[in-house]
Amino acid sequence: MTTLETAQGYAAGMGGLPFDLPASVRIQEVGPRDGFQLEPAVIGTADKINIIDALAATGIPALQLTSFVRPDAVPQLSDAADVMAGCTKVPGVEYSVLVPNLKGAQRAMECDADVWELMLSSTDAHSIANANRPTEAAFELLRPAIELGLANDVRLVGAMATSLGCPFEGRTGFDRVAWVTGLYADAGVGHVTLADTAGLADPAYVYDMCRRLADAFPQTTITLHLHNTRGLGMANVLAGLAAGVTHYDSSIGGLGGCPYAPGATGNIATEELVHLLSLLGVDTGVDLDALIRIARGPVRAAVGHPLESSFGKADPSWVLHDPPAQQVLPQPAGT
Amino acid sequence: MTTLETAQGYAAGMGGLPFDLPASVRIQEVGPRDGFQLEPAVIGTADKINIIDALAATGIPALQLTSFVRPDAVPQLSDAADVMAGCTKVPGVEYSVLVPNLKGAQRAMECDADVWELMLSSTDAHSIANANRPTEAAFELLRPAIELGLANDVRLVGAMATSLGCPFEGRTGFDRVAWVTGLYADAGVGHVTLADTAGLADPAYVYDMCRRLADAFPQTTITLHLHNTRGLGMANVLAGLAAGVTHYDSSIGGLGGCPYAPGATGNIATEELVHLLSLLGVDTGVDLDALIRIARGPVRAAVGHPLESSFGKADPSWVLHDPPAQQVLPQPAGT
Repeated sequence: MTTLETAQGYAAGMGGLPFDLPASVRIQEVGPRDGFQLEPAVIGTADKINIIDALAATGIPALQLTSFVRPDAVPQLSDAADVMAGCTKVPGVEYSVLVPNLKGAQRAMECDADVWELMLSSTDAHSIANANRPTEAAFELLRPAIELGLANDVRLVGAMATSLGCPFEGRTGFDRVAWVTGLYADAGVGHVTLADTAGLADPAYVYDMCRRLADAFPQTTITLHLHNTRGLGMANVLAGLAAGVTHYDSSIGGLGGCPYAPGATGNIATEELVHLLSLLGVDTGVDLDALIRIARGPVRAAVGHPLESSFGKADPSWVLHDPPAQQVLPQPAGT
Repeated sequence: MTTLETAQGYAAGMGGLPFDLPASVRIQEVGPRDGFQLEPAVIGTADKINIIDALAATGIPALQLTSFVRPDAVPQLSDAADVMAGCTKVPGVEYSVLVPNLKGAQRAMECDADVWELMLSSTDAHSIANANRPTEAAFELLRPAIELGLANDVRLVGAMATSLGCPFEGRTGFDRVAWVTGLYADAGVGHVTLADTAGLADPAYVYDMCRRLADAFPQTTITLHLHNTRGLGMANVLAGLAAGVTHYDSSIGGLGGCPYAPGATGNIATEELVHLLSLLGVDTGVDLDALIRIARGPVRAAVGHPLESSFGKADPSWVLHDPPAQQVLPQPAGT
């Protein structure tokens, strides 16, 4: 059986890609929040906790558990406090929650979250659709949540929905994304997440945006939150790697759809991301076999439908099949 | 509505990817052969002809129509001669057929095919599984078919299954692929197809293999025939573009599975390939909207199951949604 090591052994003798790759990448698993929130069937709190605890044992360095949005807005996540209380926190794993405003921050304060991820749309049209106000006004609603977090030494990450394309406005320009990044930076949030909310990005766009943003904000950490709505998820990861981005969000099984393309794929799958990075020799610290078992087992059972991830059906590319025996040739030539 | 041109307009102002892209790419649509052959439901000859004629009108420069394998081996393609006779050939579109041996070549001679694609496995284990003999012996069976084709001025393409990974042997080394390319070249076949038969390739492997093969055989044309079994299809296309490869096979709707991962995705989808290349500003000459209509309409109807392509559900990324109207804010601050 050929193993990952022999696959990488081939890679070690190669000329390599025409750009440098980072030595390691930090993945945040967002399935329990971003994936579950769009599932039509109610997922029980105990099932969520089991899945989260299993994921925390795979070596994944960061997990987004839930969201402190209004319970009536996202009923699937109305058990946020119970999920947080029920998980067995693994030392070294960072647990984050989504915080949309001060009220959410106050609820999050009662839980033991390491990171609050703040929610903002980069484009006015999407901000109006999601938060009923343009980006700048929506940011003002975030400000007291940011201040509460900073006062309590919570690590803050500023999410930027539609920063790699807006379903209403089209391409989001660099200047706009830089302006939002600056709002966060000025308020003391030095880590932003560029989100391809509707799966509109392409590799050249991702590469250019990340490189220019890193140049303009050298003190800000960038996470890429990519979708696979049009099959470009892993190609966009490759562009992110080429741009030097080392933080990625992904979702077990590819959970999470696209609100603008009903039934279509949403988040990139964590298994596909770890598989690609393993083949490229980029360290993630994540046990891919364990991830695949969790996806095919408890995650598949909890959501009650097949998963988007390739690894619902395929095995990692270094798992080989037994070759067939050669049969006796009847008439080897001229047939 | 933002259009493709405005999306590309953004790209035109970008720093671009850290490698050059070809100005144009030539796509061969292989769904009618490589896709249909794996479909469990029998597809009628008239349906095949309708789909092929519709595809030929999209601007695609090359179409692989069928295969002259033994009719009992692939019953779905036993109507090969009728399909060939029934199509309305479009000037400027190249029509190819798969030819596995001399008998197949003799049958193909009776039809009006521009190109014969010859079938060979790059690895002995796969060659034994598919043709019951190792690669070199299988090539000897091809030799009279090659001679017949050359004597009749048929354009020949040498397919190389498992040249980007073998499900039995693992990574296929460059030396092995170069040896098979040399067998073809010495016999007068100056165009080869590197096939990722079981979806085992990754971007670094694709890039390295294509660049080294192009260096070693500057007179040989290289086609990449990629699969999406593990979600890496478009990332591997990007690697192929970086290596300067300008010929790609793909399948409408992503038709065609993977024999080594039952139920998993097979060929990359032509719609996804054209969509990516459009966003990157690489010319294909193909009308993406027409492709998507064919996939969602007659192809979906003929196969009787949902398609693997993203564009079964999603629209191209430059098709925008109408923004919602802003509602009157109840209490804009502090809620």
